Amino acid sequence: MISDEEILKSKDVPGPTKEEIRCLVLCKARIKKNDYVVEVGCGTGAITIELAKKAGRIDAIDKNIKAINLTRKNLKKQGLLDRVNIIHGEATEVLKNLKNFDVMIVGGSGGKLQEILNIGSKKLTENGRIVITAILLETKVEAVHTLQNLGFKTEIIEVNISKGRILDRGTMMLANNPISIITGYLQ
Amino acid sequence: MISDEEILKSKDVPGPTKEEIRCLVLCKARIKKNDYVVEVGCGTGAITIELAKKAGRIDAIDKNIKAINLTRKNLKKQGLLDRVNIIHGEATEVLKNLKNFDVMIVGGSGGKLQEILNIGSKKLTENGRIVITAILLETKVEAVHTLQNLGFKTEIIEVNISKGRILDRGTMMLANNPISIITGYLQ
Amino acid sequence: MISDEEILKSKDVPGPTKEEIRCLVLCKARIKKNDYVVEVGCGTGAITIELAKKAGRIDAIDKNIKAINLTRKNLKKQGLLDRVNIIHGEATEVLKNLKNFDVMIVGGSGGKLQEILNIGSKKLTENGRIVITAILLETKVEAVHTLQNLGFKTEIIEVNISKGRILDRGTMMLANNPISIITGYLQ
Amino acid sequence: MISDEEILKSKDVPGPTKEEIRCLVLCKARIKKNDYVVEVGCGTGAITIELAKKAGRIDAIDKNIKAINLTRKNLKKQGLLDRVNIIHGEATEVLKNLKNFDVMIVGGSGGKLQEILNIGSKKLTENGRIVITAILLETKVEAVHTLQNLGFKTEIIEVNISKGRILDRGTMMLANNPISIITGYLQ
Ligand SMILES: Nc1ncnc2c1ncn2[C@@H]1O[C@H](CSCC[C@H](N)C(=O)O)[C@@H](O)[C@H]1O
Ligand SMILES: Nc1ncnc2c1ncn2[C@@H]1O[C@H](CSCC[C@H](N)C(=O)O)[C@@H](O)[C@H]1O
Ligand SMILES: Nc1ncnc2c1ncn2[C@@H]1O[C@H](CSCC[C@H](N)C(=O)O)[C@@H](O)[C@H]1O
Ligand SMILES: Nc1ncnc2c1ncn2[C@@H]1O[C@H](CSCC[C@H](N)C(=O)O)[C@@H](O)[C@H]1O
Repeated sequence: MISDEEILKSKDVPGPTKEEIRCLVLCKARIKKNDYVVEVGCGTGAITIELAKKAGRIDAIDKNIKAINLTRKNLKKQGLLDRVNIIHGEATEVLKNLKNFDVMIVGGSGGKLQEILNIGSKKLTENGRIVITAILLETKVEAVHTLQNLGFKTEIIEVNISKGRILDRGTMMLANNPISIITGYLQ
Repeated sequence: MISDEEILKSKDVPGPTKEEIRCLVLCKARIKKNDYVVEVGCGTGAITIELAKKAGRIDAIDKNIKAINLTRKNLKKQGLLDRVNIIHGEATEVLKNLKNFDVMIVGGSGGKLQEILNIGSKKLTENGRIVITAILLETKVEAVHTLQNLGFKTEIIEVNISKGRILDRGTMMLANNPISIITGYLQ
Repeated sequence: MISDEEILKSKDVPGPTKEEIRCLVLCKARIKKNDYVVEVGCGTGAITIELAKKAGRIDAIDKNIKAINLTRKNLKKQGLLDRVNIIHGEATEVLKNLKNFDVMIVGGSGGKLQEILNIGSKKLTENGRIVITAILLETKVEAVHTLQNLGFKTEIIEVNISKGRILDRGTMMLANNPISIITGYLQ
Repeated sequence: MISDEEILKSKDVPGPTKEEIRCLVLCKARIKKNDYVVEVGCGTGAITIELAKKAGRIDAIDKNIKAINLTRKNLKKQGLLDRVNIIHGEATEVLKNLKNFDVMIVGGSGGKLQEILNIGSKKLTENGRIVITAILLETKVEAVHTLQNLGFKTEIIEVNISKGRILDRGTMMLANNPISIITGYLQ
């Protein structure tokens, strides 16, 4: 896992998702070498970078052209640009045109989570997984219920991490905002 | 409990301790109407305000003259100035000259926690309590061990609180840094 | 605040709400000496005990007769039985027959939170407050949205507390489950 | 990452370290394909299993023969037994006889953390990393300070995770105990 500092940021693009959360998302996704992974809302590309190191085929989607450009930059910086198909567009549209995939990562949905999960779930291979990060209370509930209704074995974790700032006078812990990771497994 | 916004701040004085932590400190202190309470490191006076509403006699100590002035201002704003003796000085010196008290609150110690606890514990009445807030890992350990060694029934809690920002698109939780409250009870 | 150990429990009654959460609920409720406070879902009576020490008039409601009996026992143990009206019944029914009150505490709603808030909010005095504790994700969202829709200034905090077990080999922190406290203020 | 349920347990062996913590430990360790990794205190073998999938050579040490046997069983269950050297012994002794390694994971130290870090750090290759999990407050402080003194770039995170139990009436979050992960990087 690369550190947060290595990732190029922009004030117009949310993210990057913090190192520890990227790490947990990747674990929950249980990616295998030949998996076809679709990422909805790639933002800075912070998670995309890690997908690019692990999966067989990666499609990274974002509706914000600035996110698309930043993802491209970050992938290039890591020498991983040729490993990812970067797709500019609204996920609910883009997903429809994709072939079946093994894993869907949802880092942003812009109020369309249900639709994204509905469409995405129909495209999942039989051992497929969906991993969603959520910072809004409402999204957490919506993610759990939608996955449940779609028949997924559903898990939700809430992650509170604080990181030490090691000073002369001692070690001060600084909190990151809580974030939930919701995972749906088909098997 | 007044809200954080009602408390005057200054860039030269740490604090105010957040509402929820003030609330918990007050509960742990189990202050009774006639108690004599000593506060070491009053900072902005945020905790002092609450002590002033509850205890019989309050001494608020700080070595930083700016904290002393700010505490005075905040007490005045709440109409509680005449309820508190505000003392400018190094706690390890000031404590020696005080009569026995029922409760000691330690909001800051500047590397002298052990000395403050040693002196303070000798001045405690038989049912006395000491409540310490700690943000440094090292202070947490030092507080627990010193209280234990001094024969106190010792409790430590670690508090992680996040607060919602209610936006149009949903409720986002923003984390406060973790803080420990260490309490020593003589009985 | 009394300690958790002092409160009588029963396997048929949920609770008691942990000391720190009771403390925070009481702070958020901003109870004044003459306030009329209604508690929906008193359970063991752990919060009721603290209300009985602070408010002018207290009605404690529970639909579970075992909770009612346990609340009575706990109040009696603390010498506070004559301070509280204990009412056995479904809150949505009981609330309708009450006069206007200053504070409503909701510790349980059994799937009827919206109805309880609708009825309760109509009975609130002009400076009234509602404080809700929630452990279910869904209840957190419902509480925030219902209070917002009813015109309350709404606050939500999420509380994660762990408590030290002080062993010979060191201090081990044991986590309590996260709980949210949602508060609605009319002013 | 396999799930917690797949790991064989024993009442005589602490662990397994929860899925999310194993995941974060692995990320922090930044293991490369040919790395030689030493694990001090393998317990159930839960982390060992993941090391066995990633590293070039793995030595798993435990002073408790029951932990050694359980680690063997768990590795066998996952078809990974031939990937690990399992060594029964006190780490402070065993480490001395090992060749230089790239990563040391410390899951338990039994009061000998300083000695283990002193010996281990001398055996680290120039880009080496040490990752320590700590549940005791005292161990957290000791780990940070010892790594600092040994010249490591030191990081500490505190992890509070809760996991949803999805019930008919809603989603209840159940807290895991907080745990710190302390990492030392030589570069
Ligand atoms: N319906 C939708 N279709 C496509 N992209 C969307 C979308 N809703 C939100 N997004 C995108 O989702 C992103 C969420 S922020 C994602 C951050 C990312 N994980 C990182 O580490 O950088 C934003 O860039 C936003 O433009
Ligand atoms: N040894 C010592 N003697 C007196 N004051 C001390 C001290 N060590 C630290 N302090 C004071 O302790 C304070 C800690 S900040 C306290 C914040 C306060 N609880 C609030 O809510 O505003 C600082 O103002 C500092 O000057
Ligand atoms: N609609 C309703 N009307 C009345 N009581 C209700 C209710 N829904 C839930 N309850 C009660 O709410 C309680 C929630 S548990 C409350 C625990 C309490 N705060 C304590 O510290 O002990 C239960 O006893 C349950 O019977
Ligand atoms: N000095 C030492 N040398 C070797 N083993 C030690 C040790 N101190 C503690 N241990 C071992 O460290 C282990 C800590 S528990 C480790 C749990 C493990 N990570 C898991 O997931 O299962 C125990 O089995 C204990 O026997």
